[in-house]
Amino acid sequence: MPQTPLLDKVTSPADLKRLSDRELRQLADELRAETIAVVSETGGHLGAGLGVVELTVALHAVFDTPRDRLIWDVSHQSYPHKILTGRRDRMRSLRQKDGLSGFTKRSESPYDPFGAAHSSTSISAALGFTMARELGGAPDPALGDAIAVIGDGAISAGMAYEALNNAGHLGRRMFVILNDNEMSIAPPTGAMSSYLSRLYAEKPVQDIKHAMKGAFSLLPGPLQEGARRAKDLLKHATVGGTLFEELGFNYLGPIDGHDLDQLLWVLRTLRDRADEPMLIHVLTKKGKGYAPAEGAADRGHARARFDMVSGKQHKAPSNAPSYTKVFAEALIAEARRDDKVVAVTAAMPDGTGLDLFARQFPKRMFDVAIAEQHGVTFCAGLAAGGLKPFCAMYSTFLQRGYDQVVHDVAIQRLPVRFAIDRAGLVGADGATHAGSFDVAFLANLPGMVVMAAADEAELVHMVATAVSHDDGPIAFRFPRGEGTGVDMPERGQVLEIGKGRMIREGSRVAILSFGTRLGEVLLACESLAARGITPTVADARFAKPLDRDLILQLAANHEALITIEEGAIGGFGSHVAQLLADEGVFDTGLKYRSMVLPDTFIDQASPHDMYAAAAMNAPDIEAKVLSVLGVAQLGKRA
Amino acid sequence: MPQTPLLDKVTSPADLKRLSDRELRQLADELRAETIAVVSETGGHLGAGLGVVELTVALHAVFDTPRDRLIWDVSHQSYPHKILTGRRDRMRSLRQKDGLSGFTKRSESPYDPFGAAHSSTSISAALGFTMARELGGAPDPALGDAIAVIGDGAISAGMAYEALNNAGHLGRRMFVILNDNEMSIAPPTGAMSSYLSRLYAEKPVQDIKHAMKGAFSLLPGPLQEGARRAKDLLKHATVGGTLFEELGFNYLGPIDGHDLDQLLWVLRTLRDRADEPMLIHVLTKKGKGYAPAEGAADRGHARARFDMVSGKQHKAPSNAPSYTKVFAEALIAEARRDDKVVAVTAAMPDGTGLDLFARQFPKRMFDVAIAEQHGVTFCAGLAAGGLKPFCAMYSTFLQRGYDQVVHDVAIQRLPVRFAIDRAGLVGADGATHAGSFDVAFLANLPGMVVMAAADEAELVHMVATAVSHDDGPIAFRFPRGEGTGVDMPERGQVLEIGKGRMIREGSRVAILSFGTRLGEVLLACESLAARGITPTVADARFAKPLDRDLILQLAANHEALITIEEGAIGGFGSHVAQLLADEGVFDTGLKYRSMVLPDTFIDQASPHDMYAAAAMNAPDIEAKVLSVLGVAQLGKRA
Repeated sequence: MPQTPLLDKVTSPADLKRLSDRELRQLADELRAETIAVVSETGGHLGAGLGVVELTVALHAVFDTPRDRLIWDVSHQSYPHKILTGRRDRMRSLRQKDGLSGFTKRSESPYDPFGAAHSSTSISAALGFTMARELGGAPDPALGDAIAVIGDGAISAGMAYEALNNAGHLGRRMFVILNDNEMSIAPPTGAMSSYLSRLYAEKPVQDIKHAMKGAFSLLPGPLQEGARRAKDLLKHATVGGTLFEELGFNYLGPIDGHDLDQLLWVLRTLRDRADEPMLIHVLTKKGKGYAPAEGAADRGHARARFDMVSGKQHKAPSNAPSYTKVFAEALIAEARRDDKVVAVTAAMPDGTGLDLFARQFPKRMFDVAIAEQHGVTFCAGLAAGGLKPFCAMYSTFLQRGYDQVVHDVAIQRLPVRFAIDRAGLVGADGATHAGSFDVAFLANLPGMVVMAAADEAELVHMVATAVSHDDGPIAFRFPRGEGTGVDMPERGQVLEIGKGRMIREGSRVAILSFGTRLGEVLLACESLAARGITPTVADARFAKPLDRDLILQLAANHEALITIEEGAIGGFGSHVAQLLADEGVFDTGLKYRSMVLPDTFIDQASPHDMYAAAAMNAPDIEAKVLSVLGVAQLGKRA
Repeated sequence: MPQTPLLDKVTSPADLKRLSDRELRQLADELRAETIAVVSETGGHLGAGLGVVELTVALHAVFDTPRDRLIWDVSHQSYPHKILTGRRDRMRSLRQKDGLSGFTKRSESPYDPFGAAHSSTSISAALGFTMARELGGAPDPALGDAIAVIGDGAISAGMAYEALNNAGHLGRRMFVILNDNEMSIAPPTGAMSSYLSRLYAEKPVQDIKHAMKGAFSLLPGPLQEGARRAKDLLKHATVGGTLFEELGFNYLGPIDGHDLDQLLWVLRTLRDRADEPMLIHVLTKKGKGYAPAEGAADRGHARARFDMVSGKQHKAPSNAPSYTKVFAEALIAEARRDDKVVAVTAAMPDGTGLDLFARQFPKRMFDVAIAEQHGVTFCAGLAAGGLKPFCAMYSTFLQRGYDQVVHDVAIQRLPVRFAIDRAGLVGADGATHAGSFDVAFLANLPGMVVMAAADEAELVHMVATAVSHDDGPIAFRFPRGEGTGVDMPERGQVLEIGKGRMIREGSRVAILSFGTRLGEVLLACESLAARGITPTVADARFAKPLDRDLILQLAANHEALITIEEGAIGGFGSHVAQLLADEGVFDTGLKYRSMVLPDTFIDQASPHDMYAAAAMNAPDIEAKVLSVLGVAQLGKRA
């Protein structure tokens, strides 16, 4: 454990106000060491937090949180913030069941005024707090300033642009800290730092801005270049922040985000004098201060538990391939056979497996940046142009492109293939990343085909099916994590659209599964067999179109029918119920039950524990069967 | 009828290739006259089309449509395009049942390569066509160039920014025409025009760009000012198009969009020489060439049928207030009593009625521009800041902010009030504007309250209920058009959350209505009474939380239960079915039916005719009751 004498005395940000600037520098060092120690034990996002250690200390030392609303965009960089805001003793529970969230969360702390996890929301939220203050909003605690901290990737999204545009127009005092953390150059030298520090101490904001533009020439060459370098929105900032200025922001920067003195001067000056929207461009280094992170290609973005000295991660050996990898390899195999297959990701090449695809077909993979709206309609254009685009997005992020799915894809019946990863409950990332709603919001779109893979072999078949389906859009969903270890097919088979498959024939009760709950269903059947109950089990494969014959046959031949899916109400089970009602099956009685996600947002835990909370594991399925058949249960589970 | 000798000979854009530039100028004049004549008879979008008459002629004269893909953003400006592309003889059927769509539509013409209606999609689509061509996409007809025509309002949306960013990065030849139509200044004089024309004839593109920058000084003063003027993204263009250039586009402009000669020169030059993404900034005048439109505040944006000479519109007298106006007045009344009530619109102040609200409370209304993503999260921030934000959006446009509803509002349980206008089928705007999915995509979000108004008095109560509901988000939906003429309450009453109301007690069959189908249900009951059938009728008011007691009581006391809602499957009826299944009601038999929108996108017609196509009018309800009761029907409707 690191020695952290100063940090040990900090129980809330108020304690920072009593420290000298020299002590704050030491506190930052201790905070960095503690952050590394925490993540080495818990795993999680490391690099982003290390990049903002000094910024975190400076913001809490200068501003009056929680009265001032400090909003971390995405908020995977908020671990140091959590340590400083009264949660240090619970940091080892990070991302675990009943523990701290890996993101900011309103219900967790008053220092988290606005939760996040999806990117690019912070400026909109900060503007909301700002205008609420202007109009007499009186929450507890009272409203001070709003400060959004947003990365250079996140600010490039359309939503952040919309928010900047609106904030600049409204012209109220608020602070946007642009955390430009993709630089791996040397920090500004002392000349620059001390020059600026003097200026900040003496001059009004307007003068500082002019002075900073002059000070640019004092930057060392590589930093000048670095300050010019940018991607997406940032590249328009250039030095002087032309774009931000035109949007109505006062631009200040670039500032060395690891020079605590400089940060403190700038923030204190702006706190005392700003009267308009301020954009403060801070240069930081992801993974800063931890060599194994700084040296990694991803700058230590996310880590399993690791050894603090070597940085080596402790990963459990994997028995089966991840669904993501199975998808990527299946798509690569199809793309070798069909040169019309292309793939699109919105800034998630690793997470979706499309990095593997791009290695084979660099010209046929498009990373459109954090831009799901554009990404979906771009796919619609590719499809209209005669290609076979696979739009690979997490279920939760596809929500960002929903109107485009409806308006540009479904209404035009364009054959976009939606490969929906992270379907269902995802584990440590918690409720914000759960893929709960895609079946409901896709299956009611006319002309859409919606599939779910029951195992990794099924996923391979569904990729092949999607390639071959040119008559409108088609979607297939699959979960986070490893497959079940089934035998893998040599080549994916094209499934008949709207046809499920019988898994085992039984009697009395039929269980119709959609997706990977099938494994739990079969486990439940093993227990039930001991009671002499042998359910029929079928894999629906399709939520749309439904396998009408299969469903009506199951209903006709069993006294009970239970559906199960890894999604919220409104999806597969609702479509089955509609069919049964329309066909008059309920008229004469059928014990029908639909097992869906409960009407709560489920906090992070392992996926297994989250499904336990959702009452969708094997024991819950067993209990549902017994209950619907009216069989008394010993030791009935709650 | 206008005299149109040249237009009479044009049956497709190929005919334009045979006309001289002088004849093309005459053709443009005839096309303008024809457009005015058409809209005077049909009503519809007038100003936008008149603004692009010359641009339409120039694009079809220069480019090789339909091989070259011409994509109109929003596409309410596409009437002149439709006249030139073989649809002139059907223009009088515009926006009517079985007639031409008011927007571009792939199924209507090969000259409509990508349909639109929601804004800001055209650049994404054009980029899709462009990359499809690069990668060997081979649709019919083969792929030429992609050209997006997008307005200055639409290009300010986040989605358009995302697309520009991606297109600039990919760097392929494509054309974006920025139709900057909010200028009401004098067009460039002849000196500018002829100066540029000479340049275009002789110089390569790069030289033209430099020359145009020089030519800027030749513009008359007001136009210089106009060219500098801008809003949103456009303001960063300035002359020389700095922003677009930094995004990777070659910028050319500004060009007088009513000077056909200039347009032809520029487009021909670029067609022959461009090898990168081109942004052509064209200045046009909405309503151009028709004095009653040019003189109107909205430049003749949308019109009922009108008298061609005077411009006076023929509007049927209204018997009841529109739902939109009832909402606005109810919200104003609440805002007078509660200073925490604020309102947010995404560029639809007129359509949502918030223009009325802003007249009373200018500081408490926010128009965030075409920015639904930001708008929803901004509301979340306002709510977290202690205000009571009403997020007023059309159902179809709320789809653009869906992830923000989930991630920023629902997960955080913030009391944002969603006022959802244009719920259900909307009439002349057709499938793209139908509000079909909101109940399904909102009602499965934990903690969300979802209401639908059965009439305009109910709407007033729901506004009051939303004001008083601070424990999480709440949504209420209401349709386009006029109310039913019911007595209006002096003041809205706060409804008990999750409680419906009994409308009439009957027997055998119960009809549970959610929303404004209630009127049709009561009409059906009148017919049924003649057969001695007297259904029980209830208004659910809430899709979430459901009125459990009411529903179970209806199920227990009737042999049949029918739900009806103006929405797709997955919404109210699905939630009722889930409740009935969970409660074991189906175990012993219930004739349950759920009337929802059918699994098709319904083309434009009157709302009544669209609901007839959906089989959701009174005769359909009557037939459903008879069918479920097993009563034989004479002259059974299809």
